[in-house]
Amino acid sequence: MLHLVGLGLADETDITVRGLEIVKRADRVYLEAYTAVLLVDKEKLEAFYGRPVIEADRELVETGSDEILAGADQADVAFLVVGDPFGATTHTDLVLRARELGIQTNVVPNASIMSGIGCTGLQLYNFGQTVSMVFFLDNWRPSSFYDRIRENVQIGLHTLVLLDIKVKEQSIENMARGRRIFEPPRYMTVAQCAQQMLEVEEDRKEGVYAPDSLAMGAARVGAPDQKLVVGTLTELAEVELGAPLHSVVLLGRRTHDLERDYIRQFAVNEATFDASYAKYYGKSS
Amino acid sequence: MLHLVGLGLADETDITVRGLEIVKRADRVYLEAYTAVLLVDKEKLEAFYGRPVIEADRELVETGSDEILAGADQADVAFLVVGDPFGATTHTDLVLRARELGIQTNVVPNASIMSGIGCTGLQLYNFGQTVSMVFFLDNWRPSSFYDRIRENVQIGLHTLVLLDIKVKEQSIENMARGRRIFEPPRYMTVAQCAQQMLEVEEDRKEGVYAPDSLAMGAARVGAPDQKLVVGTLTELAEVELGAPLHSVVLLGRRTHDLERDYIRQFAVNEATFDASYAKYYGKSS
Repeated sequence: MLHLVGLGLADETDITVRGLEIVKRADRVYLEAYTAVLLVDKEKLEAFYGRPVIEADRELVETGSDEILAGADQADVAFLVVGDPFGATTHTDLVLRARELGIQTNVVPNASIMSGIGCTGLQLYNFGQTVSMVFFLDNWRPSSFYDRIRENVQIGLHTLVLLDIKVKEQSIENMARGRRIFEPPRYMTVAQCAQQMLEVEEDRKEGVYAPDSLAMGAARVGAPDQKLVVGTLTELAEVELGAPLHSVVLLGRRTHDLERDYIRQFAVNEATFDASYAKYYGKSS
Repeated sequence: MLHLVGLGLADETDITVRGLEIVKRADRVYLEAYTAVLLVDKEKLEAFYGRPVIEADRELVETGSDEILAGADQADVAFLVVGDPFGATTHTDLVLRARELGIQTNVVPNASIMSGIGCTGLQLYNFGQTVSMVFFLDNWRPSSFYDRIRENVQIGLHTLVLLDIKVKEQSIENMARGRRIFEPPRYMTVAQCAQQMLEVEEDRKEGVYAPDSLAMGAARVGAPDQKLVVGTLTELAEVELGAPLHSVVLLGRRTHDLERDYIRQFAVNEATFDASYAKYYGKSS
């Protein structure tokens, strides 16, 4: 059987009891290590599980899935996914491939950033579609997120923005030469995201949001040192929230007073928060 | 300290290792037992935790929160929530009250139906706002969900519909007489939800969806006997998925071919699925 086991958001103790039992008795254990990361390394997981963990990079999952699934009609294979197995990244491909091979599957859910972001105090009911923000390059500044945010803004809903991570990336030179040398991992920060959002509004000038629109920054959701802030995009572009992973939520105008009362404690500056809030938010339609 | 601990979706083993450690050492343990339920009863939880659990009904949480928080500046109080503590129902009130009393709080995330619904194979990125469906009464048929669904439909997004549960409800007579006698719990089924959706479209005739619009029904998400189906609303109004909890997802026209390939295995009837799919879905805008 193929078991897809969610690991939750922060560290090795965020696995569920059900998930841990599966990991302990599985014949092989893989860790999906390219779309999200825990705040602890593989060695710590191995020590906690009392067994070896095989790192599964994008290549292995996307083109070598038969290696992962080998023998899983008889043996138990655990495939560990940070967050939830069907959360921000879904592993439906792997499940479909398993079915084709006549291998049964079992999913163990866990917290995902898509629901964990509720820790901000913003109601999950008031979120529209989630968008992703990638690291801009000089000649590549995709702004499709801006159109999606507009759709949420028109309805008055919040937008969760998931931030790019670059793990096991090769430089163009190393790729061209076939050298398996990888760049250090990079994780987009709340400040970088806010900065890129401001740049795109500056380019496109369609008024989807403004420099004084309010957004929340969340760092290390679910960890003991989780950090939340709320401020204008201009303020967030300067904020420093420490280690990854970070996420951003752009507020929608339908923000409820109960949400305001909760998030205000995280304001970078209460005066600018109150000014922006009065200007744009708490509108019921 | 007040610990809000998510229990996940199915049974006692869905608690995280971090959460279980907190429950085992807490001075008092409350279970929020009115907005969602696990598929196991309190006695099973108590046996698993090795300690007593106090059931917290709506009254205790909403008006008696100081009883829950009593002494929590010194002692550890665990407040257990099915799903995630900030998921479909947020307990920000309790956290705010704790802060007012100078009590520190700690949140242990877990799977919520808001992300667990990803098990359908529908991408969480493609969901708009979530709506709730209540049991209609003869003289009370709130249709605000219909306006919210329209907003999602106009963009082409999926809509998660969370279904009503009635736990510890009193009849009007018992309430009037002050008798603490409660009706048996009721949980809305996928079929009841589809039926009510059809009735509201029939009443309002605004074409937000049609009898042959596709929707998914999900029962007992995260449990070993989880069940998924996809069919037209007319088909779902007849479907029988067994024990609670149930949820519904109305498909948006932006459904991606990869999503179709995954959900088709759950079709009530492949021919009607294909016909409706070709008619309405897989449109990129």
